[in-house]
Amino acid sequence: MTHFINEPENSVTEAIDGLIAASGGKLARLDGYPHIRVVIRSDWDKSRVALISGGGSGHEPAHAGFVGAGMLTAAVCGDVFASPSVEAVLAAILAVAGPDGCLLIVKNYTGDRLNFGLAAARARSLGRKVEMVIVGDDIALPYLSQPRGVAGTLFVHKITGALAREGADLATIAKAARRVAEGTKSFGMSLDTCVVPGSPKEDRIPSGMIELGLGIHGEPGVKQADFKNARTALAAVCVRLTEAMNDRPHVALVNNLGGTSNLEMSVIVHELIQSHLGDKITHIVGPATMMGSLGMHGVSISTYPAKPRELELLVEPVSPYAWPGVFSIAPVATVPLPSGLEPMNFSASANPLLSDMLAACCKSLIAARMELNALDAKSGDGDTGSTVAKAAETLLVASERLPFAEPSKLCQALAQILGQAMGGSSGILLSIYFAATGNALARGCPTIEALKLGLAEIVKIGGAKPGARTMIDALEPALDSLVIGIKDAALAARKGANHTSTILKAGAGRASYVGPDQLSGHIDPGAEAVARVFECLAKNAHKKLL
Amino acid sequence: MTHFINEPENSVTEAIDGLIAASGGKLARLDGYPHIRVVIRSDWDKSRVALISGGGSGHEPAHAGFVGAGMLTAAVCGDVFASPSVEAVLAAILAVAGPDGCLLIVKNYTGDRLNFGLAAARARSLGRKVEMVIVGDDIALPYLSQPRGVAGTLFVHKITGALAREGADLATIAKAARRVAEGTKSFGMSLDTCVVPGSPKEDRIPSGMIELGLGIHGEPGVKQADFKNARTALAAVCVRLTEAMNDRPHVALVNNLGGTSNLEMSVIVHELIQSHLGDKITHIVGPATMMGSLGMHGVSISTYPAKPRELELLVEPVSPYAWPGVFSIAPVATVPLPSGLEPMNFSASANPLLSDMLAACCKSLIAARMELNALDAKSGDGDTGSTVAKAAETLLVASERLPFAEPSKLCQALAQILGQAMGGSSGILLSIYFAATGNALARGCPTIEALKLGLAEIVKIGGAKPGARTMIDALEPALDSLVIGIKDAALAARKGANHTSTILKAGAGRASYVGPDQLSGHIDPGAEAVARVFECLAKNAHKKLL
Repeated sequence: MTHFINEPENSVTEAIDGLIAASGGKLARLDGYPHIRVVIRSDWDKSRVALISGGGSGHEPAHAGFVGAGMLTAAVCGDVFASPSVEAVLAAILAVAGPDGCLLIVKNYTGDRLNFGLAAARARSLGRKVEMVIVGDDIALPYLSQPRGVAGTLFVHKITGALAREGADLATIAKAARRVAEGTKSFGMSLDTCVVPGSPKEDRIPSGMIELGLGIHGEPGVKQADFKNARTALAAVCVRLTEAMNDRPHVALVNNLGGTSNLEMSVIVHELIQSHLGDKITHIVGPATMMGSLGMHGVSISTYPAKPRELELLVEPVSPYAWPGVFSIAPVATVPLPSGLEPMNFSASANPLLSDMLAACCKSLIAARMELNALDAKSGDGDTGSTVAKAAETLLVASERLPFAEPSKLCQALAQILGQAMGGSSGILLSIYFAATGNALARGCPTIEALKLGLAEIVKIGGAKPGARTMIDALEPALDSLVIGIKDAALAARKGANHTSTILKAGAGRASYVGPDQLSGHIDPGAEAVARVFECLAKNAHKKLL
Repeated sequence: MTHFINEPENSVTEAIDGLIAASGGKLARLDGYPHIRVVIRSDWDKSRVALISGGGSGHEPAHAGFVGAGMLTAAVCGDVFASPSVEAVLAAILAVAGPDGCLLIVKNYTGDRLNFGLAAARARSLGRKVEMVIVGDDIALPYLSQPRGVAGTLFVHKITGALAREGADLATIAKAARRVAEGTKSFGMSLDTCVVPGSPKEDRIPSGMIELGLGIHGEPGVKQADFKNARTALAAVCVRLTEAMNDRPHVALVNNLGGTSNLEMSVIVHELIQSHLGDKITHIVGPATMMGSLGMHGVSISTYPAKPRELELLVEPVSPYAWPGVFSIAPVATVPLPSGLEPMNFSASANPLLSDMLAACCKSLIAARMELNALDAKSGDGDTGSTVAKAAETLLVASERLPFAEPSKLCQALAQILGQAMGGSSGILLSIYFAATGNALARGCPTIEALKLGLAEIVKIGGAKPGARTMIDALEPALDSLVIGIKDAALAARKGANHTSTILKAGAGRASYVGPDQLSGHIDPGAEAVARVFECLAKNAHKKLL
């Protein structure tokens, strides 16, 4: 396992520069590389309370991804999973704290507490107003006197961000931050560990097991359990969360630790809503990677019992893209299926010429079953004859209820029957052919033009151009010659079909996987079938079908 | 490797329901489970051209995540990596196409082409206006006559979505879609394969190798190469893209295939901008997971030479969160470091009582080096004495330039020197102690209160409460007794320090990892150091320091 980074020691500065360069000018950084890595809002005017967070890197988008109007003013980025220095934090404070002061939002890890704490003390001695709130939302390790700070920190960022934007003062914001930090509960789980760039992968979680109560640094969780499915895994998380939550309505933040697919994340949201905790959850943030753990295949759920006023603050739009917004949970709205999906009903109508012709063609194709199978065996799985014969048999049976007197409807009926009765791509392509031809006839196209439009549609949809060793190599010349007469069309179809035996590279279908030696001298079975149909039609040309 | 799903056959419907339930009422679905899985905008009124996309699932957020105002009207979701049925596509068309018709945006895979194509033909025969555009943006396999459709499809969604919202007609939108599809070029790479739920993991890509030219279904890429770092891997991608791109300015879409950490994604953006392709790229979409591949640890880059009008359409805000927006690329803006980071300069000033006292305390701590080391060896790494002695020596040397006549500044100076000279958490905590005390003195607090505020600050920041077997167990009783006199304070400090030898569970620091047997009978070295300082002060009490 490796990572898309360069020298590990430069990954944080390079990532920050990538983030800033693609921010559309919204972000900037302090000119303190390599040791001082502070991302700030480029439009910051110090007219309000500043919010600063940070900590070790590897949790992106936290925290630099949340810098912007309505959330953080600055983020201080340490090395991967290591606290930033006192000097870096102090630089952030001195750079963004104006007369209204600043709040430091710190996840509860010793290094962060100490470095942010000392920076706060030093900034105060330089005359800055600084408050600090420590977030310890993780409930996985109840014996810890200092619970870890994890994804629930985002609730603090968002609520204080909205308050700061409104112009609240530092004391009000700090008080709100402490209240939110106190009420937020988080619990994580993972199917795999994360890998720190430059370090070997720890194979701590065996396949088929899940680790519950994981943090955001790949550190071991509370326990491992058999992983049955998303439902039971989430149920275990919900049991723990329920113990810690009060009875008020909650907002749930569904956090991807970085390597969980969006398909899985949505399944987890579904299970969360269905769980016994679901009734308590009125709103959801995510699912999204907010507090990542270097691409770990895990998830955390954080809950906060937001009061109505706090919910307003949570819902307010913000500038940073990393914040996915807050949405109310609603029952899944369903819309009745539209009409038109049921098979079309056709009124049988008579046109003996056409019905005789169809019967003759079907019989000729049924008779060709073995030959077509044999041709297909050269380049495919040897079933073209059987497939075609089965479709022809179905048509014969259906012919008594077909609308022969209305050619456009007849085409639609053929399209419908072939789409159902004939398997594989060929059935769908023939269905498209007849549907497009029927559509053209319905809007008044002359017959030959309508037939050619059908061809154009299957060329477009099927993607096989003439010369690709398909039925098109017989159909196209036949249709081109049809204006002269059906006998010429049949000759052209035959010539085209025969020519496919010299095409040594198939451009579509299964034959495209077959080498030239196996193709040489063998007619494409689809083209052969088309030629047979036209030859059958020509044999009956005295009936003046066309 | 397992997934956060339940029964694999239900994962798509459960994920869709999770997506819709958490959409805040913006999304709904057709009532056609389990076979018809169509997500639609719940506010759709058929007053404009409808846009429909879809295909196999497993690429989330594509396509259901892009349903919403300004992008898709509906998404048709197949099983994981399998095309949806004709009936499902037809249901979507019939449900959302109004008088202005609809455009189908289809990634170039045979199953999708055929099923969407037949559904289009059937919808037309039911009187609907339907256009279809096939996107084949992948340039990895130049020999393919049908290049795959991958993440560049998002450019089509976005530009047609903006046109449709403006009220453009179907012909205009379809023409724009074909132009965008034609001009979009994509290339992917991955460090690992993806795993289809219920299938075993394919170990095709060995550790240390990268696969270039990967699709979005875990199918093999063009070739494997040694993976050196992000820079060289991206350079290989850029070489291939450059060959296919024209000379106009381009928008780059940086797509996470699902399992790449955000740290890596930002490094890739940084490298892309630095690459020889960087000059051609004026705007960026992402980095974000847009067209995922089930949590694959890979990335794709798509480019499109958007004309000014198209850029306007790309930039317009949309409702779906999955669209990360388009941002202009700008040089990384830097802000000069603030003043105040340099060490404070203090003007030396005399107060012989204080300077003598400091010198006496320092000497007493230097003398205690071996004893403190021995105590620390019982519960830690045996260096407390050395650490304390080194700090004391530094203070002795510095004392001739200390501002002894100004107690608050003296505290700040001690904070600064201890923060630099004394390693580990203790140095930072003492630094916080003196900085907080100095800050309190500066704002006029009486001495004893200021000393207590310093203590409160290290309790808050350090997280160790009294009784946790730390220096606080000597410091707190000493400060509490200081109002009586320094001799009482010294006695209290000694009593407190001695008491730590009976505390058998440390609540903070390295001693918290040590069992009761090893702690019993041994005084905490930090508490011992504090007691010695107070005893030294008491010995000099006749000098009326306090």
